[in-house]
Amino acid sequence: MNDSYYALDERTAIEYARACAPIHALLPPGEPLLCEEIGDGNLNLIFRIVSARDRARSVIIKQALPYVRLVGESWPLSPERARIESDALTLQAQLCPDLVPQLYHYEPTLYLTVMQDLRDALIMRKGLIEGQRYPNFAEQIAEFLAQTLFKTSDLFLDSAAKKQAVIRFTNPELCKLTEDVIFTEPYLADAPNNRHNPLIDPARIAALRANADVLREVRWLKWAFMTRAEALIHGDLHTGSIMVTPEHAWVIDPEFAFYGPIGFDIGAVLGNLVIAYAAQPGHNPDQQQHAAYQDYLLQTLAEVWQRFATRFDALWCAHDPAAPTAFRQSFMLALLRDSIGFAACKMIRRVLGVAHVIDLEQIADPAQRARAETWVLIIAERLLLERASIADIAALLATIRECNVGDGR
Amino acid sequence: MNDSYYALDERTAIEYARACAPIHALLPPGEPLLCEEIGDGNLNLIFRIVSARDRARSVIIKQALPYVRLVGESWPLSPERARIESDALTLQAQLCPDLVPQLYHYEPTLYLTVMQDLRDALIMRKGLIEGQRYPNFAEQIAEFLAQTLFKTSDLFLDSAAKKQAVIRFTNPELCKLTEDVIFTEPYLADAPNNRHNPLIDPARIAALRANADVLREVRWLKWAFMTRAEALIHGDLHTGSIMVTPEHAWVIDPEFAFYGPIGFDIGAVLGNLVIAYAAQPGHNPDQQQHAAYQDYLLQTLAEVWQRFATRFDALWCAHDPAAPTAFRQSFMLALLRDSIGFAACKMIRRVLGVAHVIDLEQIADPAQRARAETWVLIIAERLLLERASIADIAALLATIRECNVGDGR
Repeated sequence: MNDSYYALDERTAIEYARACAPIHALLPPGEPLLCEEIGDGNLNLIFRIVSARDRARSVIIKQALPYVRLVGESWPLSPERARIESDALTLQAQLCPDLVPQLYHYEPTLYLTVMQDLRDALIMRKGLIEGQRYPNFAEQIAEFLAQTLFKTSDLFLDSAAKKQAVIRFTNPELCKLTEDVIFTEPYLADAPNNRHNPLIDPARIAALRANADVLREVRWLKWAFMTRAEALIHGDLHTGSIMVTPEHAWVIDPEFAFYGPIGFDIGAVLGNLVIAYAAQPGHNPDQQQHAAYQDYLLQTLAEVWQRFATRFDALWCAHDPAAPTAFRQSFMLALLRDSIGFAACKMIRRVLGVAHVIDLEQIADPAQRARAETWVLIIAERLLLERASIADIAALLATIRECNVGDGR
Repeated sequence: MNDSYYALDERTAIEYARACAPIHALLPPGEPLLCEEIGDGNLNLIFRIVSARDRARSVIIKQALPYVRLVGESWPLSPERARIESDALTLQAQLCPDLVPQLYHYEPTLYLTVMQDLRDALIMRKGLIEGQRYPNFAEQIAEFLAQTLFKTSDLFLDSAAKKQAVIRFTNPELCKLTEDVIFTEPYLADAPNNRHNPLIDPARIAALRANADVLREVRWLKWAFMTRAEALIHGDLHTGSIMVTPEHAWVIDPEFAFYGPIGFDIGAVLGNLVIAYAAQPGHNPDQQQHAAYQDYLLQTLAEVWQRFATRFDALWCAHDPAAPTAFRQSFMLALLRDSIGFAACKMIRRVLGVAHVIDLEQIADPAQRARAETWVLIIAERLLLERASIADIAALLATIRECNVGDGR
């Protein structure tokens, strides 16, 4: 890190905004500005800068801290990830401009980005807890996934250009974080960062951590994460990295971006929809209502995959009409199975690892929360063990539905 | 390329050697020197510099040309590969010093390396044509493969160090060459670089190129080659990149080195042993003798795999005693199947692609040569289609032995 770095506070964030020429059209110099730190994530400071004259004019300043905010200064982390985020956001904006916030400015010295304030949008995770429906979400996230994953891959790019992109998006620290907190620590009984609800049956957790087939699959998925440079993936595409209005979705926070397995991003979306599915009874005691919403979530999950697969294949055929049908079909099936495996890892880590999610944490009754968390573990374990024989998205839905223990009734 | 580059000739190679301090202990200044250009490869100039006073004192100067020597200046190729070769040789020498030539000096301006002259050794391909046996070869090549592939992988290296190594060994031009000449062009009827023996049944070639299952598998293997950064692979480990004496083997020419799939190197060794197997009747008309030698070649092939697998697993267990047995076993099986797939691609390209091998080319009778080449195609096609169900090395040998057409009897 450079010597000129300092962490902003609400006062210096306003000073920075005032001096930032790229946003003067939106917030002219001399405009009285208000600032609020609104970060609820694990890694960064997030300031909302608003005109005191017109609350509709605002920007977000996001600054990378040199440590993991969730843990504290004892866990240092290079703010270099801000450069990755800015580069990834720029590239995503070229591929699907409506589906990411607009980037106004990147400041390498302070590792900060100034970007569009999606002020009418909500973190999707919160909307799912509330039981909101997003009729355009599946189509929009499928478009984001298909565009960003196909057009940064060897299926689309020139061979040498892709290899240069791999170098540019090498992201060792955030990859290591994922390797540790998703693929390693949740399976270790003694990893000090882990925590879990003590009301989950300890025998179940011990059995999961001792299951040789589970450990084999998780090691394969970790190996895939570490070795398969397939596309520029977002790298952290859970429902806390998606903002939504009733009509629109945006993907934010690509600081984990690197060249990794395509299924990792898809699995993140699918796995977090399954978490929302298992959590919903804990947020809505009305059995009929929560069952209907759970149906909606699984239909959405299926629609995400189907729209993604259709779009990805269409981009592929348009770009390479000679791509053999048998290869395209077997590629999409392998990708579904990869995605299911990554989804399962992302589910387990939210119950047993260091970073939890409000879908589960906000279930007030610890016993009911334990039922939801147990349900997540049961579904994830089945997905890990059965993914190699799941033949299509209908079979995935059937497998999830069969795991009906712990529905809170 | 820099302006100071010039291609050496026999006179300037001697001048270079005289001025090269790192070899003065071997060839002192003032020593009368002899030089011979001995390159028979596709890409480079190779000079042997010998003391006129003592023929036992000699070095090799290898210089990368800025074009593909096999094709000519119309196919430009950056000599940057010489830097990759020098870096890879240095790393290999740390891991298995007895199994690579000693590097005396690398000259970045001229893209040349000065290295040990393995003057008593023969290119292995020539020895195999002659029916020579190399009782230590399997053990030595297995050690080279296990050391270089395990210790440059994520199974051994620190996560960040491996990612830096991926960057350092990014080798876009030579990877593109492999992508084109191994995975793409041999399957295109109209690729202008292709050539093949006109006595091979055209219907067989057309059927291979139209077989949807073959094309699917080859695309998967090309995708694996382009995306799977598993280890620093040699990248061109055929029997023309191995030098042998009756007791010893050395691996040379790692200019194609990059982070790729582990099975690519293993497949190169296996596939070229199968080519030698199919070619042997064309070099030795004595049925009993060539059958016995073919048995020796298949036993060697099995021994290479078994010794490699044992050694790789031993290195793995020593480094990571907690690596789950179920993962290690499924990893080795997947690696065998990868290796078989790459072996098949490397066999087909030597019959239908741009670069052929003397094992086949030196069979004088074109009809007998066509029988050997056809045999190579038949074995390769079966391996491509059946590799996913081959359970061990014995099953691989059985599959190869079942393809007994075209043995020249």
